[in-house]
Amino acid sequence: MALLRSWLESANQADCPFPLNNLPYGVFSVSGDAPRCGVAIGDMILDLAECEARGLVDAGGTFAQPRLNDFIALGRAKWDEIRARLTALLAEEGDRSLPLVAMAEAQLHLPIRVTEFTDFYASKNHAFNVGVLFRGPENALPPQWTHMPIGYNGRASSVVVSGTPIRRPMGQLKGEAGPEWAPCRRLDLELELGAIVGADSVMGQRLSVEEAEQAIFGYVLLNDWSARDVQAWEYQPLGPFQSKALGTTIGAWIVTQAALEPFRCAGAERANPLLPYLHERRPGLYDLEIGWTMNGQVMGRTNYGVMYYSSAQQLAHHTSSGCPMRVGDLLGSGTISGPEREQTGALLEMTGGGKVPVTVNGAPRTFIEDGDEIGLFAQARGEGYRIGFGPCTGQVLPALP
Amino acid sequence: MALLRSWLESANQADCPFPLNNLPYGVFSVSGDAPRCGVAIGDMILDLAECEARGLVDAGGTFAQPRLNDFIALGRAKWDEIRARLTALLAEEGDRSLPLVAMAEAQLHLPIRVTEFTDFYASKNHAFNVGVLFRGPENALPPQWTHMPIGYNGRASSVVVSGTPIRRPMGQLKGEAGPEWAPCRRLDLELELGAIVGADSVMGQRLSVEEAEQAIFGYVLLNDWSARDVQAWEYQPLGPFQSKALGTTIGAWIVTQAALEPFRCAGAERANPLLPYLHERRPGLYDLEIGWTMNGQVMGRTNYGVMYYSSAQQLAHHTSSGCPMRVGDLLGSGTISGPEREQTGALLEMTGGGKVPVTVNGAPRTFIEDGDEIGLFAQARGEGYRIGFGPCTGQVLPALP
Repeated sequence: MALLRSWLESANQADCPFPLNNLPYGVFSVSGDAPRCGVAIGDMILDLAECEARGLVDAGGTFAQPRLNDFIALGRAKWDEIRARLTALLAEEGDRSLPLVAMAEAQLHLPIRVTEFTDFYASKNHAFNVGVLFRGPENALPPQWTHMPIGYNGRASSVVVSGTPIRRPMGQLKGEAGPEWAPCRRLDLELELGAIVGADSVMGQRLSVEEAEQAIFGYVLLNDWSARDVQAWEYQPLGPFQSKALGTTIGAWIVTQAALEPFRCAGAERANPLLPYLHERRPGLYDLEIGWTMNGQVMGRTNYGVMYYSSAQQLAHHTSSGCPMRVGDLLGSGTISGPEREQTGALLEMTGGGKVPVTVNGAPRTFIEDGDEIGLFAQARGEGYRIGFGPCTGQVLPALP
Repeated sequence: MALLRSWLESANQADCPFPLNNLPYGVFSVSGDAPRCGVAIGDMILDLAECEARGLVDAGGTFAQPRLNDFIALGRAKWDEIRARLTALLAEEGDRSLPLVAMAEAQLHLPIRVTEFTDFYASKNHAFNVGVLFRGPENALPPQWTHMPIGYNGRASSVVVSGTPIRRPMGQLKGEAGPEWAPCRRLDLELELGAIVGADSVMGQRLSVEEAEQAIFGYVLLNDWSARDVQAWEYQPLGPFQSKALGTTIGAWIVTQAALEPFRCAGAERANPLLPYLHERRPGLYDLEIGWTMNGQVMGRTNYGVMYYSSAQQLAHHTSSGCPMRVGDLLGSGTISGPEREQTGALLEMTGGGKVPVTVNGAPRTFIEDGDEIGLFAQARGEGYRIGFGPCTGQVLPALP
């Protein structure tokens, strides 16, 4: 697919993350006024609440709200209608009087009220690497890993928007003479993509992979901050808990499934056939470059296409017990890591469990130190354009003893 | 404490679960009218929305809503004020013209919108018994178990009110030649008490055990239905997921902390001192008989006082990473099991992992069969009165293949 040209010149630049092909949704305010829904275009934000007030689009008043949940709940036909309408309004022959706000002057907010948060574990490289560190090479990859998308319920209340500072947690750490109460010493990031569920499902009924795909509204960057020392002591047998509740940062812009459609690709090679309920009729991943920075330096870079399970497969599995899903549920992909060290999406992997430091602007690091800022980035590259996600950053504050 | 006598005679009977000392909150409707908040008294429900409409109580209009969340969010001073007012109105010298509805004619609804659901694991007997079955006696009790209240995030969307049928789930089960897709064959209950969080906390800030206790509104019966065969195959390393998402049943009546205050007691003996952040200045458990029935036959009966961690300790630990808590969060105690077989709160334990059947109305059972109905019950016994919780039942429907 080629660049769709806009009358807004900043949207036509080859390195612009938000061309007309993208149109990601977010929530913004300016100078402390009421947060409302918008779409990123070039270096501007299109004020959707004002568009609706002027009668340019019809979303039942949902764009005036400070979260996208009610718009998303209107369903796929409405998503498609609004996307087509915005594409026409912003095209070269479109409406040059649209209510645009400079992105540089806007404050971005959490785009959705996160209903529930589930985190998966779908990169085979990551699962193996971390498994070696936690359990040794023999037990690294759990036996069910190649048969089901393993996931666990995370904490929705600690999901925050890009730019929110993250407090280093205190926690129980394993010590020589019993556990101690101390600030986390092995604070880490996890490079992930988050899928946002766009439709409710009924308790007791399962979604097929095709139905699950239809139920996904879009994707955000997601950093699942992790306290590795807390995790190592707490996680058996019921899984990670406080080690993952200190904060999860998501990007402010939700890139729609529609924008990513041209980049569809197959994932990692299968070790064994999947059970029919996880069969995918068409490739469910995206050819999407994704990576992370520490204090501005690129540390890791890989591709979302390395994953073993798609979000649609994860969502289908999530309903396999009859579990009802709801608009605003957030599904983390799991840490995205390629096979090479410079392709890993967590310091735990990159430093071999803290044994082999990396260099950041000339200074050694094994885990994240106070004041460090982690940023995620992602982009799909089309012909003469790219689909970007905007930043997903967080700076770490010292623990409160 | 002795019975507080009411002008409503049914509330003064020695076996009544809802005397004036109790006053549990719920949500009800009659003949399909709008669900609203009420309090159980004797064999009646006091219509709080109508009480407020008549100016008898002031809860800012929250009693007219179909969930208790907004009332609960008004805070402890308001809880105390309303309790004192209702106690006066229903006392012998109270107001005999109050708007009462016969409980037998009312439909009971989910009393809260469950914000998030966390399930703990706080009975040492249960943790040991289940640990032996899943991991053998050497690794039965995880090393951190006596140092922290282990918990995991569950799924809030599948929490339903007493009386809702539960669908047997399909799932991935471990087979000889790889996993199979089949109806769960080891469906189980878990006998628990659920604590309802009544105050928001701030991200990055921890609650002490005392602050946590002040943040708990009340308690409900809770059955965390579990698919043991799905659990055994899926749960390593990230914990239970779909095995616990088929449904969680809670009772319709929230018994307040105030009603349980006279029954405060210490829990199980400590194996080791706790870290200071988990210290409890006064006993945090309750002397509360709790048990379960299958098809009407009492199967297990124990006491909530056997638990190792109180809800206040669990909530304090939940905030130890800085995780923010919200009104309507539900914290499961973990399965409540005493040391003896007839004191266990799950069939997995009671049947030794399905090896030693129990007899239910003359028929053998290892796990739950289609059509079986599980009920939970609990009561605290005062002088001439009891504090009951009402029923917490669910009947199992066949799987949808």
